[in-house]
Amino acid sequence: MTVPPEKDAYGQMMLATLHGEDNVLEIVERDDGFINASVMGPKLYLAPFRRWPAHHRRAMRLVRGRVLDVGAGGGRVSLHLQERGHDVVALDNSPGAIDVCRRRGARDARLLDFADIDESLGTFDTIVLLGNNFGVFGSPTRAKRLLRKLRRLTSDDARIVAESRDVSSRGGADAPWHVAYRERNVERGRLPGQLRIRIRFRNIIGPWFDYPMVSPGQMREILDGTGWHLERTIDSDDTYVAVIEKTSAT
Amino acid sequence: MTVPPEKDAYGQMMLATLHGEDNVLEIVERDDGFINASVMGPKLYLAPFRRWPAHHRRAMRLVRGRVLDVGAGGGRVSLHLQERGHDVVALDNSPGAIDVCRRRGARDARLLDFADIDESLGTFDTIVLLGNNFGVFGSPTRAKRLLRKLRRLTSDDARIVAESRDVSSRGGADAPWHVAYRERNVERGRLPGQLRIRIRFRNIIGPWFDYPMVSPGQMREILDGTGWHLERTIDSDDTYVAVIEKTSAT
Repeated sequence: MTVPPEKDAYGQMMLATLHGEDNVLEIVERDDGFINASVMGPKLYLAPFRRWPAHHRRAMRLVRGRVLDVGAGGGRVSLHLQERGHDVVALDNSPGAIDVCRRRGARDARLLDFADIDESLGTFDTIVLLGNNFGVFGSPTRAKRLLRKLRRLTSDDARIVAESRDVSSRGGADAPWHVAYRERNVERGRLPGQLRIRIRFRNIIGPWFDYPMVSPGQMREILDGTGWHLERTIDSDDTYVAVIEKTSAT
Repeated sequence: MTVPPEKDAYGQMMLATLHGEDNVLEIVERDDGFINASVMGPKLYLAPFRRWPAHHRRAMRLVRGRVLDVGAGGGRVSLHLQERGHDVVALDNSPGAIDVCRRRGARDARLLDFADIDESLGTFDTIVLLGNNFGVFGSPTRAKRLLRKLRRLTSDDARIVAESRDVSSRGGADAPWHVAYRERNVERGRLPGQLRIRIRFRNIIGPWFDYPMVSPGQMREILDGTGWHLERTIDSDDTYVAVIEKTSAT
């Protein structure tokens, strides 16, 4: 499902950033009441390649052929890969984000939920999910279903380049409010880092959505049986970019 | 009523700031869902006199005698006035804020709701409510009751030095989300700037409270019949400090 315009807090935040408004913050609320705001988020979403974190720049070397940029946000990945000559489809479920992608020059930006992609988009060689966007796969069940579908929509030597983080070892992991949240998730049969969050901007309250953060081990379990495997990781202090490749049919 | 420790978002924010934590934000949520976060708030609450806004420094010249500092927060006003030789009582309904005031050296800091002050605190010559803290008076009805009580607890030539802002003319007043909020308040028989807000910090959600912002005209109506009158104002770009004095008994 795409986000209805009246709930599109993320998209309105991106538009305000594009319009050069001062001090635009990304406010993220978790379903236990934890809330945080970041000045850096909106800036990174529109940043040119040279301002990206090093592991994001490195991840771009792994991109080949036709690209699907999932959770495209402000379009930075799509725009960079377009410039490098790739055929790119930018995908987002936020109408405002897709608006921003188009205004900035993305040639093919689609307002669509990742779960609703199909053959009409064509075949891809690389699927990119940077910025913790492995979370866009959603719950493990949804992720497995989507990964199987992605096998059909990709070439034989396709790659998924997806960022996530191990919530048990990241900075601040020991804070009691984070420990309690992970324990609460496990009690409910969820992954410890299976965030349920929403974005807030001005008086717009975004819809709740599942956005799991997984360790490499947890990612392997999600990939198991889907026809994809974790080939290697590019690590940063806080997160890692997973390079996921197709497992040969046996 | 004072804030229960488990809901003391404001106090925990002040303590985190005192402990030198990075990027502590003051997140304020309004009852229409509007939300904002400020980096400046927590810093100002602990700022030394030389870093205060000019109109706050000017307001200090109007202070005389024994002082009640209402909504003392991080104690900056109390500490400054103590240094200048005043006998000061710092008052706050946040246990964490009072803790911070004491740790920073406030000699007499009381955890007490402004509405619950009584003769046991002694008599004051100046009541200070800086930083939009005229809002601590609460709704106009509550404010009138408190102002009458304050007549009894103050000397004959006492002053109230209280900051507020005219929400219809401040920066950003024309934004549709602020216009809609003021209209909604008026429809409900409230002052247009009668904010209902709560503070959030990490996973702590503060209690809702009324925090009116009033124009000088609206302030005069609140003062009418209470034995206090608006003598003059010290204006800044965004707010004003009201100098309120006792009206001679007729």
